[in-house]
Amino acid sequence: MKKDSVGIVKTKYLEFFSPPHELKLESGEKLGPVHLAYETYGTLNRTKTNAVLVLHALSGDAHAAGYHRSTDKKPGWWDIMIGPGKAFDTHKYYVICSNVMGGCKGSTGPSSINPITKRTYGLSFPIITIKDMVKAQKALMDHLGIKKILTLVGGSMGGMQVLQWTVSYPDMCHSAIPIATAPYLSAQSIAFDEVGRQAIISDPYFKGGNYYKSRKKPSRGLAIARMIGHITYLSEKSMHSKFGRNLQDKAKYSYRFLTDFQVESYLHHQGDSFVKRFDANSYLYISKAMDYFDISQGFSSMNETFARVKAKYLVVSFSSDWLFPPAQSKRIVNALRQNLKFVSYVDVPSSYGHDAFLLESETLTRLIKKFLATVSKEIL
Amino acid sequence: MKKDSVGIVKTKYLEFFSPPHELKLESGEKLGPVHLAYETYGTLNRTKTNAVLVLHALSGDAHAAGYHRSTDKKPGWWDIMIGPGKAFDTHKYYVICSNVMGGCKGSTGPSSINPITKRTYGLSFPIITIKDMVKAQKALMDHLGIKKILTLVGGSMGGMQVLQWTVSYPDMCHSAIPIATAPYLSAQSIAFDEVGRQAIISDPYFKGGNYYKSRKKPSRGLAIARMIGHITYLSEKSMHSKFGRNLQDKAKYSYRFLTDFQVESYLHHQGDSFVKRFDANSYLYISKAMDYFDISQGFSSMNETFARVKAKYLVVSFSSDWLFPPAQSKRIVNALRQNLKFVSYVDVPSSYGHDAFLLESETLTRLIKKFLATVSKEIL
Repeated sequence: MKKDSVGIVKTKYLEFFSPPHELKLESGEKLGPVHLAYETYGTLNRTKTNAVLVLHALSGDAHAAGYHRSTDKKPGWWDIMIGPGKAFDTHKYYVICSNVMGGCKGSTGPSSINPITKRTYGLSFPIITIKDMVKAQKALMDHLGIKKILTLVGGSMGGMQVLQWTVSYPDMCHSAIPIATAPYLSAQSIAFDEVGRQAIISDPYFKGGNYYKSRKKPSRGLAIARMIGHITYLSEKSMHSKFGRNLQDKAKYSYRFLTDFQVESYLHHQGDSFVKRFDANSYLYISKAMDYFDISQGFSSMNETFARVKAKYLVVSFSSDWLFPPAQSKRIVNALRQNLKFVSYVDVPSSYGHDAFLLESETLTRLIKKFLATVSKEIL
Repeated sequence: MKKDSVGIVKTKYLEFFSPPHELKLESGEKLGPVHLAYETYGTLNRTKTNAVLVLHALSGDAHAAGYHRSTDKKPGWWDIMIGPGKAFDTHKYYVICSNVMGGCKGSTGPSSINPITKRTYGLSFPIITIKDMVKAQKALMDHLGIKKILTLVGGSMGGMQVLQWTVSYPDMCHSAIPIATAPYLSAQSIAFDEVGRQAIISDPYFKGGNYYKSRKKPSRGLAIARMIGHITYLSEKSMHSKFGRNLQDKAKYSYRFLTDFQVESYLHHQGDSFVKRFDANSYLYISKAMDYFDISQGFSSMNETFARVKAKYLVVSFSSDWLFPPAQSKRIVNALRQNLKFVSYVDVPSSYGHDAFLLESETLTRLIKKFLATVSKEIL
């Protein structure tokens, strides 16, 4: 294990919102009890002012850094950014990451048991929004006794949660780093999500979402949804330089319906490995939450939305990201500037597309270290 | 019926390549007999020098203009461009359009009966390439006694055929108009095609391609493939201005897995209507032909590919087309210019994305009329 690793970590679980104190969801429905799986790295200081809340993207989980077992081949999903001396320096900060509600990695979601019926929720699980996810995280912060979060950070759907936090709970957010995200999902992104959901729902093994006891799962449908996703995560340029028209394990065309091109093989691999670690129903719920996300809902304009926020922002986009294009980040930045809020905006030149938020770690580390040095001075 | 319509037309059928004179395919396999469905509009002149060959895109057919019955609600797919006084003026030109081999609109394809087994080909149908499609069209030209084609025109996959014609049969092509096309399919486009094929193949009613006698067809899979296609045909901007985040027949979110957004409803409609008119196996074969297309195959470079062409070119791309981006058209143009060939190139400013080749008919009409006036002077 490297010196800059947080080492062996353990996922913790919190249960709250037990009846009759259920969580009131945006849809009007109630949910409870709710479990949240979360991990923490570093030590919360005496004044409880050094907390960094990491919000994960569609397929992420609470395991953001370190290893669960010494034999683990891979560390947590954002290990490159979290640890001693790293961007989120665990010598200085107390880093928290929780699995979103609706997910399948320990937090309450469609694969959880409904305590009333004693059966898996499946599609009887209520629709969850980004605001609902954030509401559950707020309860986690309350539980940890954290009244002011030093910074909230996340890419993609994680960035949506960052934005929602600063709007829903302005007094609790000292600073915020929304990365590769958007104030609302575009028509094109909704379209891609919907096709993915149709692929899952059309799978013969989906069975209306009640597949948990079956030997066969809606794996083909979920793999297809994931394949669509992966095309949108890469830029045309990065796909070209990564694969071009190179053939997979052959010198010439097969003239059959086999995998000829490396790019096909890559997508198959991404699809097949995803179904081993993700629940199809959670994919439906989380992608729907992203579709529903519109930070301005309930406000008269984007400007009014950000009128009462108190956080200082570092907004980051990536030049070749066409799923969450820079123009979307600029909408956030413009609204903040119209309100004379503190905001630094960087559009990082990158050819990696949306995936850049996980790949451009050197640039992100440099930017985030500088930003945190500034904002933490005021509070630590 | 409008005055500028070609009126009531009839699809014609030609049978050739009967054993033992089968068509030798690029894969090495033989196919025969081959049927081509085709339509013609206007009159072939005495010298047989006024022929315009229209090549269709993925889901097109031979019915490019006019009406089959006076009760038809819609004319042929490119009626706006073909007819008396239109871009392809049927007072002057003899316009021919044939359904591609591998298709399902009258030409031999996977839904045809294999004359040897007396059963539907299904997946036993051989893989077809763009070069093969063009080879069959060449036989149709021979049959019609046309030795020199005034111009060849087509968008998207139609443009691929145009390019292939000018390279395979340089002496037969007087001029060529490849629109919204590419010298080879990009990794990103191959990726989208492959996901579409996976959706079809994974459909429980696909049954290895032998679904013709079944009541249930792989309609869900084909609809999903078409939905993916439609996302790539529109630009992000046109999707935004067409749908934005507008809700479909409701004032607020349903908080259920229903169609909330207009863009979802649009895609469902496109998918559902497509399955009524298209064969899933043909979708597999034709998309594969597009993936395999690389005009430079067998040549040492793009420049060498176009060294022996004789046609004059009008190359057209559309600024917001991200499936067949302008950069791809520029590769063709550059190679032609390196060889000092006659080429006019126009990148039409348009927000319609790839669909522009069917929508920007006014601009296309203006460009094509001017181009045809010039090139037809030399031959008519």
